[in-house]
Amino acid sequence: MEDVQQLLSVFVLTAAASVLVGTIAIPVLTRLKFAQYVRDDGPARHFKKAGTPTMGGIIFLIPLVLITFFFVGYSTQVATAAVVTLGYGIIGFVDDFIKIALKRPLGLRARYKLVGQVILAFLLGLFTIFYLNNGTDIYIPFIDYNLDMGYLYFPFILLVLVGSTNAVNITDGLDGLAAGTTIFTAVGFAFVSLLLDKPDLAVFATSLAGGCLGFLVFNFHPAKVFMGDTGSLALGGGLASIAVLTGTELLLLIIGGIYVIETLSVIIQVISFRLTGRRVFLMSPLHHHFELKGWEEEHIVIYFWFASAVFSVLGVLALFYFI
Amino acid sequence: MEDVQQLLSVFVLTAAASVLVGTIAIPVLTRLKFAQYVRDDGPARHFKKAGTPTMGGIIFLIPLVLITFFFVGYSTQVATAAVVTLGYGIIGFVDDFIKIALKRPLGLRARYKLVGQVILAFLLGLFTIFYLNNGTDIYIPFIDYNLDMGYLYFPFILLVLVGSTNAVNITDGLDGLAAGTTIFTAVGFAFVSLLLDKPDLAVFATSLAGGCLGFLVFNFHPAKVFMGDTGSLALGGGLASIAVLTGTELLLLIIGGIYVIETLSVIIQVISFRLTGRRVFLMSPLHHHFELKGWEEEHIVIYFWFASAVFSVLGVLALFYFI
Repeated sequence: MEDVQQLLSVFVLTAAASVLVGTIAIPVLTRLKFAQYVRDDGPARHFKKAGTPTMGGIIFLIPLVLITFFFVGYSTQVATAAVVTLGYGIIGFVDDFIKIALKRPLGLRARYKLVGQVILAFLLGLFTIFYLNNGTDIYIPFIDYNLDMGYLYFPFILLVLVGSTNAVNITDGLDGLAAGTTIFTAVGFAFVSLLLDKPDLAVFATSLAGGCLGFLVFNFHPAKVFMGDTGSLALGGGLASIAVLTGTELLLLIIGGIYVIETLSVIIQVISFRLTGRRVFLMSPLHHHFELKGWEEEHIVIYFWFASAVFSVLGVLALFYFI
Repeated sequence: MEDVQQLLSVFVLTAAASVLVGTIAIPVLTRLKFAQYVRDDGPARHFKKAGTPTMGGIIFLIPLVLITFFFVGYSTQVATAAVVTLGYGIIGFVDDFIKIALKRPLGLRARYKLVGQVILAFLLGLFTIFYLNNGTDIYIPFIDYNLDMGYLYFPFILLVLVGSTNAVNITDGLDGLAAGTTIFTAVGFAFVSLLLDKPDLAVFATSLAGGCLGFLVFNFHPAKVFMGDTGSLALGGGLASIAVLTGTELLLLIIGGIYVIETLSVIIQVISFRLTGRRVFLMSPLHHHFELKGWEEEHIVIYFWFASAVFSVLGVLALFYFI
């Protein structure tokens, strides 16, 4: 278990490095006027958030890459995960840049975004199957069975990436919500990686968690910076690639249960409104529902963190319990 | 909730500073031959721990003091807590020094130790009652009632300090056990301090937690350093003084439930053996029982951490639920 000592170092150092990068980057982002556009139809108290700099994802992405490679040296697994994470970070960055600097609120056109995502999914699939010889199996929890997906593995990876990045993006709607929940999700995947004997990926996951903790120093309410799509797509891409590289794509549904619930709340709201004309939630995603119920933003965030910690523990335990 | 942002900074910075101090201090402690004496009657696999440097408590105590005062400036509450913590650290250091450098395994004589503890309890009581005007009340959880202890408050504080420091000391028997459980206990008290409107003490508690995380980088199995009595008495003194200064002495029994269980296991073992001649546990404290049952040291430690996190959450919730 020398591993755990190393992981603790990685966690502390990435957190500290993110605080350092944040201290330097936030004034720069503010001066460049990379400031947040706030949706008109959102809760009224969010209007005061206009002007807060965004694209803060770079605050944890730079330390993530530097510290992970410092600790593991060259590792194809980590390089693959890092390419997908940064690739999504770049898609998010272009999206943020078009929305904010060019003031086109729709951002990157959906078709270009999809092309980028397909390329990343394809790269991830190729490396997983041919270079890392991980095969096309996915692990089915609770029955402890590996299902061979065959050619369906490529579209499946695309689905995991698109689902995960959109889900984290949807969750990123309150100060500290996405960064805080991702600490627990990433720590969960660090355990999964260790248990499945992929210590390099455990370092990557731990560094992701540490970076989120450091980022939270600036992002908890009242946020001095937002992660933007730069951050949320990168986090979703990072978590998804760890899941793919460990073959535990389905565990992502448990460990990242909070993202699943947030996404389902949007889907349920839309379907219900189309079919019956009625809304199930006061507003979706779910965190806005609680806001409109009058809960304090920081209380909602802390409850969601707690839920995320519980999901993370359950997801790791799912590796041990079978029907 | 600017407070929480500040607390996150304190947590990350104390953790990072402890890693830095540890990197410098461990080779020095090793060279000074401040190495651990291992009890002859303990589990056999602990014999290989002989030679590991001890007195590692200084690794988190130095950053704790510097960073807390950097963030809160002068605060009588924090100064009182820091004096009690460092006072216990010094008692522990003298004890460690006599045991190890002077090779007298019984350490500091019980009577001198008690004199030191009485002085610290008296100081803590005086400051709490007369300087901070906190009165002689203690909070009774679940019935939400403040009980005025009157003159009994001084012996009660002594009991809290002696109980807490001994309990943490008993818990400090496996690599990473006391440091890891104290992260959760201290975070619990940071929440309690915030909720009871003592933000300075919340900084102190958070710094204690961050210091334990940084220390854990070296102390998780296989440990490169032990905290010694220097560390365990200081942690017990720090937690007890936060409890006294917030008037939540009884919550310490819930939030620090793991220390309570460890202490009870020793008491039960002794009483059972004296009365019936039979042992309830294979060995006490409880963590040694699981070791002799054949569990891996690091697994026991992680389960105890998890229990500690649960106790911490329950203790904070106890502020909200009444019979």
